[in-house]
Amino acid sequence: MTTTAEMLKTHPRQIEADADLFAQCADACFECAESCTACADACLAEEQVGELRACVRLNLDCVDICESVGKVLLRQTARKPETVRAHLEAVIAAVRDCAEECELHAQQHEHCRICAEVCRRCEQSCLRLLGGI
Amino acid sequence: MTTTAEMLKTHPRQIEADADLFAQCADACFECAESCTACADACLAEEQVGELRACVRLNLDCVDICESVGKVLLRQTARKPETVRAHLEAVIAAVRDCAEECELHAQQHEHCRICAEVCRRCEQSCLRLLGGI
Amino acid sequence: MTTTAEMLKTHPRQIEADADLFAQCADACFECAESCTACADACLAEEQVGELRACVRLNLDCVDICESVGKVLLRQTARKPETVRAHLEAVIAAVRDCAEECELHAQQHEHCRICAEVCRRCEQSCLRLLGGI
Amino acid sequence: MTTTAEMLKTHPRQIEADADLFAQCADACFECAESCTACADACLAEEQVGELRACVRLNLDCVDICESVGKVLLRQTARKPETVRAHLEAVIAAVRDCAEECELHAQQHEHCRICAEVCRRCEQSCLRLLGGI
Repeated sequence: MTTTAEMLKTHPRQIEADADLFAQCADACFECAESCTACADACLAEEQVGELRACVRLNLDCVDICESVGKVLLRQTARKPETVRAHLEAVIAAVRDCAEECELHAQQHEHCRICAEVCRRCEQSCLRLLGGI
Repeated sequence: MTTTAEMLKTHPRQIEADADLFAQCADACFECAESCTACADACLAEEQVGELRACVRLNLDCVDICESVGKVLLRQTARKPETVRAHLEAVIAAVRDCAEECELHAQQHEHCRICAEVCRRCEQSCLRLLGGI
Repeated sequence: MTTTAEMLKTHPRQIEADADLFAQCADACFECAESCTACADACLAEEQVGELRACVRLNLDCVDICESVGKVLLRQTARKPETVRAHLEAVIAAVRDCAEECELHAQQHEHCRICAEVCRRCEQSCLRLLGGI
Repeated sequence: MTTTAEMLKTHPRQIEADADLFAQCADACFECAESCTACADACLAEEQVGELRACVRLNLDCVDICESVGKVLLRQTARKPETVRAHLEAVIAAVRDCAEECELHAQQHEHCRICAEVCRRCEQSCLRLLGGI
């Protein structure tokens, strides 16, 4: 069990059934936030930065929404499923945009290849949660 | 003209028509993030904090998504309207939840009364932008 | 009185003397976060983005620490002056770095000129608060 | 090798010596941000929330500064060691405050016990990096 799942299961009003799914998705969001932060910075340092503008921008959006939704998923007090759904749809849109863009540069830039994979994992995790709530 | 609108208009690929609407909405999101941060903390310090749990939680969600979407709105490079829309829908859901909850305590807690107003202004600003893109 | 100061003054354990100083500094931090988000994105879209790499990076750091410290300043419950001081020192370092870099490009890029001014206002506001607590 | 270290090592201007130390510290910051988000929310849901006000507040500060510094550590372009140091000092102050407070409730609340451990790991990781740059 990860620390995140362990934390969610100590919540006084924790709903057992959900905790693993929420924990895994939150972890995927934070992993994605880290990866996209590093990818944006690596793109910025590339000689051909001029061709990576969209990649930097989409990475930055992805960081912001991943951190935001990651935190929303970690809160179990007064959770509103409808709002969680709207958040998941926003993060799915952002990680998809970012994955698609990173995939275009995956051959030339190792950081884009890895980051695209992390984004796709996050997308899958969010879709799984969206299907489960 | 606010500093934010001024900043957006100096962007090398700025689309004149949109800048004021985006700037106003981003400002409303950041104002809401500040107000909800302060409201969550004030609720926490109230004697009857036990009755304000949902308010604290919804305030915190609101802070996170408002900051996230506020930043997305300030980026004009490689903007994806579909993704902006998904972000706006998420922030609208969160500010509505928060406004509704704060309104329940507006009579007893001045911070909830003010915060509800700020959330409603942010909601209106987001709806206006959603209708305009 | 700004909304932020008004919010801080409704806190059940509010210390009258501090509220305006804290509110003004928090507002300056959030204004700076917005300005630096827009400046990073505008730099990214400039033809000579290759010469603006440091500017983008320092803008991004500035956004992160300004948002973080802005929120810390808005919390009055169990405030620890020593920790507030460490936060202010971090944000002062970051806004200074960013202002110095933006000032180098202020002649060529209007967004850097405005952003440098916003950073300097934030620096002054943080120094004033640091001197007052 | 973690994904984060792998990402940092694909940076075009990566300094081999530092990457593992920075990656580990960034991961510790993000793990701490997640743990403190969950702990704040669990405290909020406890029957005796009135005795956990300081814990919630210090958790929230910790989240903000951990995310902020975590991202700063992931950026290698135009890195300023002096500023990284100021950031590390701020995050160390915040995780210490949070760990000390969580330790007071570790016997009664499992989430505080786990969260205190995560904060202490983050503190150690930050001190190690501070000593190494």
